[in-house]
Amino acid sequence: MKDLHSINRLIEAFEELPSIGKKSATRLALSIAKDKFKALKLINAIEDVVANIKECEICGNFSEHEICDICASENRDKTLAIVENSKDIMIIEESGSYNGYYFVLTHIDDEVIQKLREIIKDKEIKEVIFAFPPSVESEARSLYIEDKLKDLNIEFTQIAQGVPTGVHFENVDVNSLAKAIKLRFKL
Amino acid sequence: MKDLHSINRLIEAFEELPSIGKKSATRLALSIAKDKFKALKLINAIEDVVANIKECEICGNFSEHEICDICASENRDKTLAIVENSKDIMIIEESGSYNGYYFVLTHIDDEVIQKLREIIKDKEIKEVIFAFPPSVESEARSLYIEDKLKDLNIEFTQIAQGVPTGVHFENVDVNSLAKAIKLRFKL
Ligand SMILES: [Zn+2]
Ligand SMILES: [Zn+2]
Repeated sequence: MKDLHSINRLIEAFEELPSIGKKSATRLALSIAKDKFKALKLINAIEDVVANIKECEICGNFSEHEICDICASENRDKTLAIVENSKDIMIIEESGSYNGYYFVLTHIDDEVIQKLREIIKDKEIKEVIFAFPPSVESEARSLYIEDKLKDLNIEFTQIAQGVPTGVHFENVDVNSLAKAIKLRFKL
Repeated sequence: MKDLHSINRLIEAFEELPSIGKKSATRLALSIAKDKFKALKLINAIEDVVANIKECEICGNFSEHEICDICASENRDKTLAIVENSKDIMIIEESGSYNGYYFVLTHIDDEVIQKLREIIKDKEIKEVIFAFPPSVESEARSLYIEDKLKDLNIEFTQIAQGVPTGVHFENVDVNSLAKAIKLRFKL
């Protein structure tokens, strides 16, 4: 509406978030205009995330410390799951089907390979699990990393095709994901 | 996740907004954790709404001024549409099917009835349109208000049942809403 510049700007800001269309963005903006207490609570929560959330220096997971709780733990299995992003770590953790370490792979270069080598050595990793949604690209990536690390005395596996092709983890039920992790097989 | 208190708090804050479930709230919170620029933009937009949006002193619509653009206008039809909330004003305005004034009815008491009398007098209103989604309660409310204002020389109408029972305006297509307004009938 012509008069409501600030509401229109808020609608636009919401529309930039994932899966928020014009209709949802409008609904969200109006509910915030209506309830200033809720608005301030949301501002505080966002500020808190901006101030406190960083990437773990070891694995790249979201963390409130330099090193995340998972990397800091000594009680994890000696496996390393390589994932596409922090969200996938959160989803796998909530499935309760895995108790090893993680690494968020944003890209591949010599530095990343070196980082993986260090984690594998420090954590005495026995098995690297490629936990990507199945695709031709992710298989190529997995094979490339395996090749770069083949001198190490470890196993390489990938999660089973129980995760449907092209579907993101957040749209997979916990049982399918747990099964895919349980049924992981050697590359 | 246990480590991520601030993300969990943000997920909870998002879940308090309308039509946002646990899954959407998580997706939103993680996208904000990932993109701090987007996060700051959203904070600014929310702060702007909190600072600038108030309720119009006459009609109760959202406004950036004491009196909203619609109430301040002299060029509107001499009709007054009584609606349930500001969002409905926005939706009706966007439908382009109405050019009169509005009043947001949050409750009914003597003060509200007095306010309606003043608007009807000031704006020389000839017709009051009850623009509520059809329901037994809203019909009772309409009849009550008509009774309280029956000494005034004006017409009372309600929007046609083209708006499906129990469905909110935001889920009705613009044509149905336009038709419902066009086909309004006398109470
Ligand atoms: Zn970590
Ligand atoms: Zn107004």
